[in-house]
Amino acid sequence: MSNDEKFHVQRHADREVHDQLDIEKLLDSQYVAHVGFIDPDINAPFVIPMGFARDGNRILIHGSTGSRMMMVIAKGLDLCVTVTQLNAIVVARSAFNSSMNYESVMIFGKARVLNESEKDIALERITTKLVPGLWEYGRQMTKKESAATLIVELTLDKVSAKARTGEPSDDEEDVSLPLWAGILPLTTSVGAPITAKNAQGIPVPPHIG
Amino acid sequence: MSNDEKFHVQRHADREVHDQLDIEKLLDSQYVAHVGFIDPDINAPFVIPMGFARDGNRILIHGSTGSRMMMVIAKGLDLCVTVTQLNAIVVARSAFNSSMNYESVMIFGKARVLNESEKDIALERITTKLVPGLWEYGRQMTKKESAATLIVELTLDKVSAKARTGEPSDDEEDVSLPLWAGILPLTTSVGAPITAKNAQGIPVPPHIG
Repeated sequence: MSNDEKFHVQRHADREVHDQLDIEKLLDSQYVAHVGFIDPDINAPFVIPMGFARDGNRILIHGSTGSRMMMVIAKGLDLCVTVTQLNAIVVARSAFNSSMNYESVMIFGKARVLNESEKDIALERITTKLVPGLWEYGRQMTKKESAATLIVELTLDKVSAKARTGEPSDDEEDVSLPLWAGILPLTTSVGAPITAKNAQGIPVPPHIG
Repeated sequence: MSNDEKFHVQRHADREVHDQLDIEKLLDSQYVAHVGFIDPDINAPFVIPMGFARDGNRILIHGSTGSRMMMVIAKGLDLCVTVTQLNAIVVARSAFNSSMNYESVMIFGKARVLNESEKDIALERITTKLVPGLWEYGRQMTKKESAATLIVELTLDKVSAKARTGEPSDDEEDVSLPLWAGILPLTTSVGAPITAKNAQGIPVPPHIG
């Protein structure tokens, strides 16, 4: 990854992602968001990895009502939520021009706490993002569990997206050097399900694979 | 990932990682850090994905001297740099107990800008982290390129690490239900190198594989 982009990508206008579908696709493909806020107790930045799910024009983040971090986020502080996918190591003829291919979305705004009547659909969305089919297959969520869960939403109204794609960008005079250049693709894959010790003998359901 | 940890992991004391070696191993295995700071112009949090390299008791982050973000970071503001590896989706009998296995390190502190005499070793470390062997194989870095690169270090003196590992944690009364539980391991792998269009015919060097 080049570390020289500005907000709104003034340095690399070619790295801005304009397509709303690309943004939604990236958010749907990733499980972890890095949620940044200013910790009011110490007036310092804090970045925590959290699970999230996109639902239409919002993302949903959840945690325990007993979690200090969730309480802070629920206060409606300014957030910057960043989701990144690394796609390749980009090897140029020089260290200086080597880079990474990636896609990244930054979402800015204040979280809004969902009320009780809004929770059920949100919990379904969050569950289905993590494990498609589990909402229908699993033991139903209890009222107590729902009450113990704090869910916030952040709309996708203020979003900045960036990406680097494609070939290495070598200096013209470097291309004729007898040096290799190219990319090393990175892929994340889901392995075969591993049944829990206390679930031996239960067949793996079709939604798990 | 459960979203209910506090700083210093009061809620899940079992999720704290104490081993310095584990922290170094995680940092060395990951390419991207999420760097959080308070943007002084708008007094709001900002989280950007950046490449980084660990070198002993510090991490190194670099960018262009013309990058506004790097200039802000170089000012010595408080930073929170978070590095996360997602290892598995944890499927419990209930949505409520489903989770993710992950490891995460948060590094707190202020960045220090390296002076010219400190840059060479840092550039070697950053390059070797991204592409082992490229520092020796590639076209040498020029004085101009080095001068155009701003490098900061952040020591690993104030670090918080967390992890979730292992099996699903179902409620006792759920274990007897005829429902599957287990984990779906996630693996990131490096694919075969793809030679750049303008490097066809150049053999892939041994350090690339």
